[in-house]
Amino acid sequence: MSHKTTLTLISLAVSMAAGGASAKEPIDPIRPVQEINLAQVELGKKLYFDPRLSKSGFISCNSCHNLSMGGTDNIKTSIGHNWQQGPINAPTVLNSSLNLAQFWDGRAKDLKEQAGGPIANPGEMASNHVLAIEVLESIPEYRVEFKQVFGTEKITIDEVTQAIAEFEKTLVTPNSPFDQWLLGDEDALTAKEKEGYALFKNSGCVACHNGEAVGGNSFQKMGAVEAYQTDNPAEGLSAVTGKDADRFKFKVPTLRNVELTYPYFHDGEAETLEEAVELMGRLQLGKKFTEEENAKVVAFLKSLTGDQPAFQMPILPPSTAKTPRPQPFGEDS
Amino acid sequence: MSHKTTLTLISLAVSMAAGGASAKEPIDPIRPVQEINLAQVELGKKLYFDPRLSKSGFISCNSCHNLSMGGTDNIKTSIGHNWQQGPINAPTVLNSSLNLAQFWDGRAKDLKEQAGGPIANPGEMASNHVLAIEVLESIPEYRVEFKQVFGTEKITIDEVTQAIAEFEKTLVTPNSPFDQWLLGDEDALTAKEKEGYALFKNSGCVACHNGEAVGGNSFQKMGAVEAYQTDNPAEGLSAVTGKDADRFKFKVPTLRNVELTYPYFHDGEAETLEEAVELMGRLQLGKKFTEEENAKVVAFLKSLTGDQPAFQMPILPPSTAKTPRPQPFGEDS
Repeated sequence: MSHKTTLTLISLAVSMAAGGASAKEPIDPIRPVQEINLAQVELGKKLYFDPRLSKSGFISCNSCHNLSMGGTDNIKTSIGHNWQQGPINAPTVLNSSLNLAQFWDGRAKDLKEQAGGPIANPGEMASNHVLAIEVLESIPEYRVEFKQVFGTEKITIDEVTQAIAEFEKTLVTPNSPFDQWLLGDEDALTAKEKEGYALFKNSGCVACHNGEAVGGNSFQKMGAVEAYQTDNPAEGLSAVTGKDADRFKFKVPTLRNVELTYPYFHDGEAETLEEAVELMGRLQLGKKFTEEENAKVVAFLKSLTGDQPAFQMPILPPSTAKTPRPQPFGEDS
Repeated sequence: MSHKTTLTLISLAVSMAAGGASAKEPIDPIRPVQEINLAQVELGKKLYFDPRLSKSGFISCNSCHNLSMGGTDNIKTSIGHNWQQGPINAPTVLNSSLNLAQFWDGRAKDLKEQAGGPIANPGEMASNHVLAIEVLESIPEYRVEFKQVFGTEKITIDEVTQAIAEFEKTLVTPNSPFDQWLLGDEDALTAKEKEGYALFKNSGCVACHNGEAVGGNSFQKMGAVEAYQTDNPAEGLSAVTGKDADRFKFKVPTLRNVELTYPYFHDGEAETLEEAVELMGRLQLGKKFTEEENAKVVAFLKSLTGDQPAFQMPILPPSTAKTPRPQPFGEDS
């Protein structure tokens, strides 16, 4: 085969792979998960669903990052221990492995670091790492499984968060209609959805919402063109960097599965996609979408819903006489 | 084949089926589910996991009857809307179709009638049937599925509770070691478990804990021989019948999966099986088990854990702009 033929074939392959889309689209298809430790995933799945990691015995990771509901709780701000009102909207766990950092202000560098936070947050699960380990150590099935997975006799919080993070890495959502279109299936999107995508690109949304997760890879000021009005006191990245210039900079949320992850923004104040698109256009881009344009962008956004996690409900090993009891209502009476 | 040969073969079959157990054991194996409407089951599964049936958008049937945890919440008394403390221990949903009635006091005649209760109970899910229907009607996927399943245009609470009940009927747990033994596998139980079962029978536990569910088929006085001391004000069946003779009569709980359904009794005061066996022997039978006997009975009880529900986490259809918003923290602000 001549060099010329080879090049032609490569060009053809690239062109076919890109399908109706240009090879230089600012959004990439979600790749399948790779290099996953399946034993850690299975253990992490149990831990993700185990409310005994909370003080009350009632709240698990899945309570606020509900995998039946787009990896969120669909509440403006979450409900924590003793029905405390959370300070910020719970971001989706779906595709969160693609984020450049975790939490709205990026204060955790990765999923492993993130996973330890809510367990010990007095306003969320309200336990602590010592108690959480004591609970797990008291359950023989967990001791055996941690030993099988990590090869150590003692369970550590490092192993707990590692396993949860490994499970969370599996929570990607490939195969959305938009990704099918990106991969060459011209019919995967309707004309309206394609027009919405064109508007999304041409209006500048892709400046922040790009890449595999359609977001999640930068911090940006909420209210770039016009100030954002909110009662929510969160100031974003500046809480981490201490820099005044970082005030109101938040991690750009992923738009993957955005139809499922309402309400929107760090304060959860936008209830619908229409409202979110209108506000983002105006505050971030100085653009006023017409009603028709707004509907098209929303149609495009709904094409970003991919395959949701599909797995069997984990069955949790029972507590024993040695297991510290849940304390849902103050001290055990 | 002669009649005599036929009879001999039948006798042999019966004898084989009974295995090491007598054909007249007071406990029956759990039969597979039959006559189930699978379309209703799939819909009911979604509803069972949907927290939008609660006022807060946070509490689903599965919150307190957690299928990862023996169909209970493993808390003394449950957590309801606004972190209210429930009045009574949440009974397991597993095998609940085998109960003669639902709730500890039997106030619901079946699962369908039961399912409507917590949704509208101000101390539990704190919604109401009108609002719950309004939520479901606002979600196109639910409208389509209800129409497919029930053939009607309007969603009704009758259909909602019917579907949930149908799903719950699938939550039986066959194939426990004890059932395997009942069905003829002599090796399915250890010597200790068999001795525990002999004690369970000979001590009189089977007077109440018998049949397919090892309980669930009668109301009995808590404290038959010796009065039960509790701070819990529940008075049981008398609240339904109004009869003084029914005071402190509660539905006998199933002992299926009892290793998973701690803590025990209507007030959830017994934390371990050892404690529960000790108290039941003393209060109901006037019998003081030795430590060794207690351990044997507990070993038998743990052999009643059967196959736990195995199904994929349901994915819930998203709310729309028309869906009434959750009200986790009082009126929507």
